[in-house]
Amino acid sequence: MNDVVKPKRIGILTAGGDCPGLNAAIRGVGKTAIVEYGMEVLGFHAGYSGLISGKYNVLKESALSGILTLGGTILGTSREKPFKMAKNGDNLKPEKIKKNYAKLGLDAVVCIGGNGTMKTASLLAQEGLNVVGIPKTIDNDVWGTDVTFGFDSAVQIATDAIDRLHTTANSHQRVMIIEIMGHHAGWLALYSGLAGGGDIILLPELEYNIRSVCKKIESRYEDNKPYSIVVVAEGIEHPKDKSAASHIAEAIQTYTGIETRETVLGYIQRGGSPTPMDRILATRYGSFATQCIAEGNFGTMVAIKDNELTTVPLEEVGGKLRLVESDHGLIQKARKMGVSFGDEFL
Amino acid sequence: MNDVVKPKRIGILTAGGDCPGLNAAIRGVGKTAIVEYGMEVLGFHAGYSGLISGKYNVLKESALSGILTLGGTILGTSREKPFKMAKNGDNLKPEKIKKNYAKLGLDAVVCIGGNGTMKTASLLAQEGLNVVGIPKTIDNDVWGTDVTFGFDSAVQIATDAIDRLHTTANSHQRVMIIEIMGHHAGWLALYSGLAGGGDIILLPELEYNIRSVCKKIESRYEDNKPYSIVVVAEGIEHPKDKSAASHIAEAIQTYTGIETRETVLGYIQRGGSPTPMDRILATRYGSFATQCIAEGNFGTMVAIKDNELTTVPLEEVGGKLRLVESDHGLIQKARKMGVSFGDEFL
Amino acid sequence: MNDVVKPKRIGILTAGGDCPGLNAAIRGVGKTAIVEYGMEVLGFHAGYSGLISGKYNVLKESALSGILTLGGTILGTSREKPFKMAKNGDNLKPEKIKKNYAKLGLDAVVCIGGNGTMKTASLLAQEGLNVVGIPKTIDNDVWGTDVTFGFDSAVQIATDAIDRLHTTANSHQRVMIIEIMGHHAGWLALYSGLAGGGDIILLPELEYNIRSVCKKIESRYEDNKPYSIVVVAEGIEHPKDKSAASHIAEAIQTYTGIETRETVLGYIQRGGSPTPMDRILATRYGSFATQCIAEGNFGTMVAIKDNELTTVPLEEVGGKLRLVESDHGLIQKARKMGVSFGDEFL
Amino acid sequence: MNDVVKPKRIGILTAGGDCPGLNAAIRGVGKTAIVEYGMEVLGFHAGYSGLISGKYNVLKESALSGILTLGGTILGTSREKPFKMAKNGDNLKPEKIKKNYAKLGLDAVVCIGGNGTMKTASLLAQEGLNVVGIPKTIDNDVWGTDVTFGFDSAVQIATDAIDRLHTTANSHQRVMIIEIMGHHAGWLALYSGLAGGGDIILLPELEYNIRSVCKKIESRYEDNKPYSIVVVAEGIEHPKDKSAASHIAEAIQTYTGIETRETVLGYIQRGGSPTPMDRILATRYGSFATQCIAEGNFGTMVAIKDNELTTVPLEEVGGKLRLVESDHGLIQKARKMGVSFGDEFL
Repeated sequence: MNDVVKPKRIGILTAGGDCPGLNAAIRGVGKTAIVEYGMEVLGFHAGYSGLISGKYNVLKESALSGILTLGGTILGTSREKPFKMAKNGDNLKPEKIKKNYAKLGLDAVVCIGGNGTMKTASLLAQEGLNVVGIPKTIDNDVWGTDVTFGFDSAVQIATDAIDRLHTTANSHQRVMIIEIMGHHAGWLALYSGLAGGGDIILLPELEYNIRSVCKKIESRYEDNKPYSIVVVAEGIEHPKDKSAASHIAEAIQTYTGIETRETVLGYIQRGGSPTPMDRILATRYGSFATQCIAEGNFGTMVAIKDNELTTVPLEEVGGKLRLVESDHGLIQKARKMGVSFGDEFL
Repeated sequence: MNDVVKPKRIGILTAGGDCPGLNAAIRGVGKTAIVEYGMEVLGFHAGYSGLISGKYNVLKESALSGILTLGGTILGTSREKPFKMAKNGDNLKPEKIKKNYAKLGLDAVVCIGGNGTMKTASLLAQEGLNVVGIPKTIDNDVWGTDVTFGFDSAVQIATDAIDRLHTTANSHQRVMIIEIMGHHAGWLALYSGLAGGGDIILLPELEYNIRSVCKKIESRYEDNKPYSIVVVAEGIEHPKDKSAASHIAEAIQTYTGIETRETVLGYIQRGGSPTPMDRILATRYGSFATQCIAEGNFGTMVAIKDNELTTVPLEEVGGKLRLVESDHGLIQKARKMGVSFGDEFL
Repeated sequence: MNDVVKPKRIGILTAGGDCPGLNAAIRGVGKTAIVEYGMEVLGFHAGYSGLISGKYNVLKESALSGILTLGGTILGTSREKPFKMAKNGDNLKPEKIKKNYAKLGLDAVVCIGGNGTMKTASLLAQEGLNVVGIPKTIDNDVWGTDVTFGFDSAVQIATDAIDRLHTTANSHQRVMIIEIMGHHAGWLALYSGLAGGGDIILLPELEYNIRSVCKKIESRYEDNKPYSIVVVAEGIEHPKDKSAASHIAEAIQTYTGIETRETVLGYIQRGGSPTPMDRILATRYGSFATQCIAEGNFGTMVAIKDNELTTVPLEEVGGKLRLVESDHGLIQKARKMGVSFGDEFL
Repeated sequence: MNDVVKPKRIGILTAGGDCPGLNAAIRGVGKTAIVEYGMEVLGFHAGYSGLISGKYNVLKESALSGILTLGGTILGTSREKPFKMAKNGDNLKPEKIKKNYAKLGLDAVVCIGGNGTMKTASLLAQEGLNVVGIPKTIDNDVWGTDVTFGFDSAVQIATDAIDRLHTTANSHQRVMIIEIMGHHAGWLALYSGLAGGGDIILLPELEYNIRSVCKKIESRYEDNKPYSIVVVAEGIEHPKDKSAASHIAEAIQTYTGIETRETVLGYIQRGGSPTPMDRILATRYGSFATQCIAEGNFGTMVAIKDNELTTVPLEEVGGKLRLVESDHGLIQKARKMGVSFGDEFL
């Protein structure tokens, strides 16, 4: 570390879908940079678009006050992918980013985002930029880390919604279906399903059988439990012309004849103030990312493994997903307590 | 009131869609009956079904402890309409109710519900039963009272959801559409729309024009407010093959080209613990309903007018709806602050 | 209204203790002034101090965006009383205010606050300023209006706290005392006590007897209800060297021997995001205050009577308090349901 | 494990202070026992008192429905310590427990509690009972596990309170002190202090200096940050005749002259519905405890180490505390971001 030139000026951006904790991470990066290392911090606008266009604000410490509790991102975000080839084969965006990086005298840039963001960050690192990634997503599916911020907040919102459905399900003796975000990974459906006392939980990673689902509901009915809560991830197999929730609801209504209603929870899962644990996790990631910069640890994503902060090479992260294993401890426990994952008759 | 036989035994039921505060109302009726008047209280199961079948539990004071905060209804509910004629023209249900009422020695029955429930209650009163109605609904559209319990809780849930959408809308600079319950009455969309800082609010009672909606969004965009929140009641005019939210979202996306996302809030609006104000309102209604019984004031619905408890004849209530007037004070105020109701170019 | 000079420039300030909804009221005043009437709006800093010192910001519409949901006040507040005589008998503050008012070309000033603020507003009106007052306080004790914003939010916070105490009281079979804000008026203790299912509620307006309190707890114990919740307003009669809660807790422990614990809820009752109903009430008040200015209706406080917006002369408001009457409807209902107000043996 | 007699009948109890998640743990133990292993489950009343007196209920699956979300404990709790010697040297309680255990034909008993409960559980194991412990406490200070349930919920309640104080502190430009539970361990103050954006955090484990505290507040004042939030654990060094919060508040007011207010959060930190993560943790612990019984793994406490479920011998747990190390990673990160722990001038 002796030869490391002491970094003076760093950039920061948030990319991909927004989630609770982005501002806490920005604050963690910025406060540590300013208070501990005396760095200057540039906040780029709207994800990688800001690096391409060179639009930024200098983030003074005062701009970082009061944002710990705010949802969304004060920097804005976008799904801009600068390495995606243009139709005519040209792509000047990476060059623009490199020019801006040099022109602004940046010593490093912190990229906060999910899988796609980390892939771009890895490519920028290959182009010679000093990059540190911070993983965020409500889906908790970033490869290389045990947990991402945004997940705890989303679990809370989804669980709160399931709690509310219980009272209606019970009062009307209905089956209630709730669809939770998660195209590929079922972490959010699994955690909120367990925390919300779901009777059946369907995940993208586990094959399910509508017959198993209906049998479970009927056996509950026969056991004098005339209502059931079914938690489904949006990414389970279903016809493309309807939502996952509609598909399951229609099947249950048809096969069991029991009154069934569905709710698609939607965008409220990503908004609002982060939970305390997400604020702390995002703060830890943010502060640690700045420390990585100070120590010259580039081309890496900050991560948590077994409760310890660590780093993983960005090139190992990109393009992979962390999915729920079919024999995950929580699934095993849940089965023992009578929860169905819809795969009993496969 | 001199000739009133002191009531000894009363029934209570909850009918129609569930909403927060039902248990608080049951507790209000029951505790007042037991503590103040020494009555016996029978809780009938699943709405009017329980009166037909004669299924009930005796509600002791201990059964009323701890239910003040619970969502749903401990009695269960149903949409049973005992006066609806059977296909063959026969209908023995009213007779069954009258027999059970006599057989159980009831002096009165309290019916908690919305418009439909009050209509049935009115018909039962015509059949000679001593009936007192208590108005509940998240829609706040029961005729004859200024407010129903369940509404305050639903406004809070809906507003909380709109709050969450703001951060995503802002971070992504999108238009976010949220669909709120309300087939005929827009009270819930109006209140949550204002409390949530909605930019455009569409109500079933007000004709709207998609051009007005798009103009408003574009003018905000031009004023450097690149995101907008649109709150729509489910009952606004829209094609039957999609939700109101989808209809508006597609139109905005098509005409303005601005990225638009929709959320249909759904059943979570009716569940969960009631707000303090709904608990108090339900308690007041419940306690007052028992007082009405003690005073022999039958065939009436308890109501609030100008903050005072009062009663209205059940026969005046049934079949009517309390709708938002187009010149309602809140609408006038909102217009002055720049909120659009989508009717500028009609 | 023909002779009214069209107001062009107005001031606004928040004074006294902060409470949820202040920013919603500022936004209501400001947006209506800017959007509807084309006025310029000056926000004075830290209550009446800002009028004395002339410190203000021009509030553009953009500064009013996003503040609807924020607790506290973006203008700051203070307990400055400009008409309080200095020790030497001099007092130049009113003159300074008048000079600033003239120098800045103000056509009117909106003063948001509680009883003390309204008194000062009234004195400023007597000095010739065009003043409109807006009532706020979590105590709900401003004379001349049925309700103030801040109250609904505080009821919710206090009720949430009481809900939490229930589980501990029940698990440990203890008496739990909770002290709620309210020096003179018991509205907050009354409403949260009822919504939280308190067994005993002590208000500043009602004389109480510790023997009644203990008898009630003992009779509950004998009825197999081994825990009790006691809600006390901070302003009930008690020795000055301890809190009201400590006083009651010690007495109960001594006389009944039942394990008793106390909690003083404190400042969290005034903080955080306002409830939807407080946002709407504050918005209505704010917008209506600007309308009063436009109509030349000065020297008045905006108010709600029987759900209708109205105005009352400021000179009638100052120095009076709206207290809980001993035969208030809620107290009557609560007594019938078995709630004690500690006055059974007086 | 071959020789293990298949357990048929198990007991369960909750002891010590209540905390969110106790019912989720009871449900986890019970549902796994009933659904997976066909055991019978006896719920003992009021902690170890129930084992002494032999008071219990058989917990059927239906009794475990709907308790996942409830705060407190359906079994009741107490601070009964059966091995504490009576004054005359006699102590028949352990013998009574052994007799009841034998008479009821118990194969094992699950003891849910904190440090004291684990010590008693260890002594019961030495007496020959088959015991499995489950750690709970909002203090998170049970030795041998990384985390206890109840902690996440308490962090959320405390953080929510700190969030509310921010708006008042800012509006009035005051110093706000908040006292958080934690006699010996500062975990709750540390986590809620960081999540709530506290400027100064005082923990029982770290020596502090009132001069450091005041210097920090004054330097913030000079940096144009005229308000500060100070989070103190109840167990920091302070005179016994006042609360920790009062002690710090008085010192700050005296030395800096800046207006200071205090709040003692109290019992609301242990009540109410558990967070989703506490529900899941308690469920995992509960289900795993039953699995330990099925596998004959007795005399152990279930625990989490590096995110994995494991067991530790009960005899190693009793009487020890898990405290915050002075160089804990969160403390290091917080210092780098400008948070003071009051030890700068020691």
